[in-house]
Amino acid sequence: MDTENTLAALRARVPEQLLVTDPDSVGRYAHDEAEWAPHGTPAAVVRPVRTEDVVAVVRTCAELGVPVVPRGAGTGLSGGANALDGCVMISFEHMNSVLEINPREQLAVTQPGVINDDFRAACREHGAWYPPDPASSPWSTIGGNVATNAGGVCCVKYGVTRDYVLGLEAVVGDGEVVRLGRRTAKGVTGYDLCGLFVGSEGTLGVITEITVKLLPGVRAPERTVVGYFDSLVAAGEAVAAVAASGVVPSALELLDRHCLRAVDEWKNMGLSDEAEVLLLGRSDTPGEAGEQEVATLVECFEKAGATFSAASTDQHEADALFAARRLAYPALERLGPLLTEDVCVPRALVPDMLAKVEAAAVRHDTLIANIAHAGDGNLHPLIITPAGDDAARERAQRAFDDIVADAIALGGTVSGEHGIGLLKRAGLHDELGPTVVGMHHAVKNGLDPAGIFNPGKVFGEPTR
Amino acid sequence: MDTENTLAALRARVPEQLLVTDPDSVGRYAHDEAEWAPHGTPAAVVRPVRTEDVVAVVRTCAELGVPVVPRGAGTGLSGGANALDGCVMISFEHMNSVLEINPREQLAVTQPGVINDDFRAACREHGAWYPPDPASSPWSTIGGNVATNAGGVCCVKYGVTRDYVLGLEAVVGDGEVVRLGRRTAKGVTGYDLCGLFVGSEGTLGVITEITVKLLPGVRAPERTVVGYFDSLVAAGEAVAAVAASGVVPSALELLDRHCLRAVDEWKNMGLSDEAEVLLLGRSDTPGEAGEQEVATLVECFEKAGATFSAASTDQHEADALFAARRLAYPALERLGPLLTEDVCVPRALVPDMLAKVEAAAVRHDTLIANIAHAGDGNLHPLIITPAGDDAARERAQRAFDDIVADAIALGGTVSGEHGIGLLKRAGLHDELGPTVVGMHHAVKNGLDPAGIFNPGKVFGEPTR
Repeated sequence: MDTENTLAALRARVPEQLLVTDPDSVGRYAHDEAEWAPHGTPAAVVRPVRTEDVVAVVRTCAELGVPVVPRGAGTGLSGGANALDGCVMISFEHMNSVLEINPREQLAVTQPGVINDDFRAACREHGAWYPPDPASSPWSTIGGNVATNAGGVCCVKYGVTRDYVLGLEAVVGDGEVVRLGRRTAKGVTGYDLCGLFVGSEGTLGVITEITVKLLPGVRAPERTVVGYFDSLVAAGEAVAAVAASGVVPSALELLDRHCLRAVDEWKNMGLSDEAEVLLLGRSDTPGEAGEQEVATLVECFEKAGATFSAASTDQHEADALFAARRLAYPALERLGPLLTEDVCVPRALVPDMLAKVEAAAVRHDTLIANIAHAGDGNLHPLIITPAGDDAARERAQRAFDDIVADAIALGGTVSGEHGIGLLKRAGLHDELGPTVVGMHHAVKNGLDPAGIFNPGKVFGEPTR
Repeated sequence: MDTENTLAALRARVPEQLLVTDPDSVGRYAHDEAEWAPHGTPAAVVRPVRTEDVVAVVRTCAELGVPVVPRGAGTGLSGGANALDGCVMISFEHMNSVLEINPREQLAVTQPGVINDDFRAACREHGAWYPPDPASSPWSTIGGNVATNAGGVCCVKYGVTRDYVLGLEAVVGDGEVVRLGRRTAKGVTGYDLCGLFVGSEGTLGVITEITVKLLPGVRAPERTVVGYFDSLVAAGEAVAAVAASGVVPSALELLDRHCLRAVDEWKNMGLSDEAEVLLLGRSDTPGEAGEQEVATLVECFEKAGATFSAASTDQHEADALFAARRLAYPALERLGPLLTEDVCVPRALVPDMLAKVEAAAVRHDTLIANIAHAGDGNLHPLIITPAGDDAARERAQRAFDDIVADAIALGGTVSGEHGIGLLKRAGLHDELGPTVVGMHHAVKNGLDPAGIFNPGKVFGEPTR
């Protein structure tokens, strides 16, 4: 009934060919890749081709009080893009043009639906570099990256999505189009509403265009350092040693034996014969300074007890190891539903946090694989449960909750880069406390008086 | 009467020795260095020694509905820290301790009243580097830098204050103490309220502690390139050429003949014999890559018609030139009241904007000196009027308004780094438009329901 109402109102304003209404097709848009997060059934999906289409959707939904849920590629891992019952999903697959790449001003302007890898390739063709490189970069969209403030491998040296977003066009309120931020290198005119929208997971409005900062495209070739370790904690100590050394690597990634085995079983790379835990460091500093950084990384790995540590002299091998890093998540997904953690702790406490993850796995008799942007202190314990085993699922949830609590106790945060969505709401409340959550509600209520933009996500009451 | 009320209420909660109430002393806190901005008379000044003192002030003011105006060193150039009649000023001169410098976590924690240069020196002693370096760095405080999102010479390569602020403690609402942001390298838990407070000029709460990111302290020595030009526009073309070259200099500063003469008259440096316009570039890239950058800068300067262009081989001379850059503002202040512009335009449009500044000077028969963080497109036309000449003042105001309008028309912003305060409110309204200004009011009303935090500043109705 409500759904029919919504559809009729949409049809009055939105061209028919932009609407997806048959239940099977709609169902494919109803959730992201957070397998544990609940989702509802949307009334419809709209696939806009221009900002005016988004305006039409927001106006309609504001009048009816119907939730609007924007969606990129649906690669999110926290349920942020999951449907609410009766909502209208906006999917940006047809707003996927790069509008401007301007190396002189060191910026690019893009529609939200462009795939991260496609966007970065387009920038490269113009001699420019857009650093943010989430592991989902072959699939995820720039719009989704901005909505979640996505991170990636390069962040340890080059920062996250938020560090690159200069300006946004967004549809806000009951359908006004605004421009936030700027095109200039600097600017302090008013509140940083552009930065506020980055990472707001669709709760403040719908982003329809994005202006990002670019870096020069000419980069020194990266040198790779490989370290094999017998234990997670030893690898963690190598990470803490790198932090203490003052070297800022261009990547510092960790993969444990579960990841290595899963990749081997899928792609037959022979990684797990070599190590229990693999640490991959990179330096992109040119010349002698870069050589010195590589030597320091090797030294840090050795001091922490690496069973093998060396600068890779074989670029093919080095690339294969980083490819394995990117394959680890899909390889593990083949083993069963994953509950993905994303805690981030101070760098020096990476060994402590890894020890706590191991303890949680033992305590709750559950399998936890570890991928980590270790140089950031951003860990991704992946809790794997056999499909259909409810008891295992219950244990996994307890391990998840313990890891979140441990990260907060170590002065860390419950989400380093994936966002809160639905899965981490309890953790957000624990981390921020009631006054800061109250500030979130005040901002949300001020900017979304109709309460239609992805309501209940991020800081809504956890329902678990 | 109201003042007496406020004083009585403050005395009930704030230790007497923290209060400044005698009119002469209070008067010294009543305004910043924006000589053209109006200011009122505070009821009192409080000089807190701990966060609890700030809580006491905010509670008192929330109960009475009295404005709270936080103040750093009063070096602001837009009137952001100017007193409102009957307000309570909070001056942080006694909350001036650096609390932690942690090179391993690449962060530092400080009270707001620490002077920028003192803070950066303390970081250097720990082998770490805090880049933001506003020209006011010998006097301005970190708290003021954060409140205005201050820029500086290094920003062209290393970004502004906002790029370094990880976390804040603030007193908000009617006296709650909150922690915003984080200590970890990454984090996406909830809205970026920390980033929202940076540059909010005291309108959302009172910042009592600041956590900033640091970079490694070991830096390659900077190489300096000097260019002399016959005209502002030629120097602007050199700036545009540098932007087009893909080189990101570690500094690119412009000084025109008025600045050079003013420095000469004060410090007898002999600069104005050499050039009409001086451009100072720097590269801190180590090794051959840095040498190549220097060669590219020289080439860009020459192509744009420099009368002289060379890499400086004399570090003493290079340092003297950058010292002259820092002296330019106080040297010009000796000539009469300055109306300070701070527009920022796309880099390629720097020559166009400089031409428009020159045209405004001619059209309104007023003296305009130009300092610029040229590599950012951030220009500081300084409009100089003889003291007491009302007609000249009127012409200066018209030139100021024209420059703001020109910057907006070129796709620029009315404030690159000084903030809006009182002087730029009309420009903010013109640049952002009513819907975005409405979003500012919504955020402000949500986070400051009592309306006590520096009310009327930034986006309040311009009264001129």
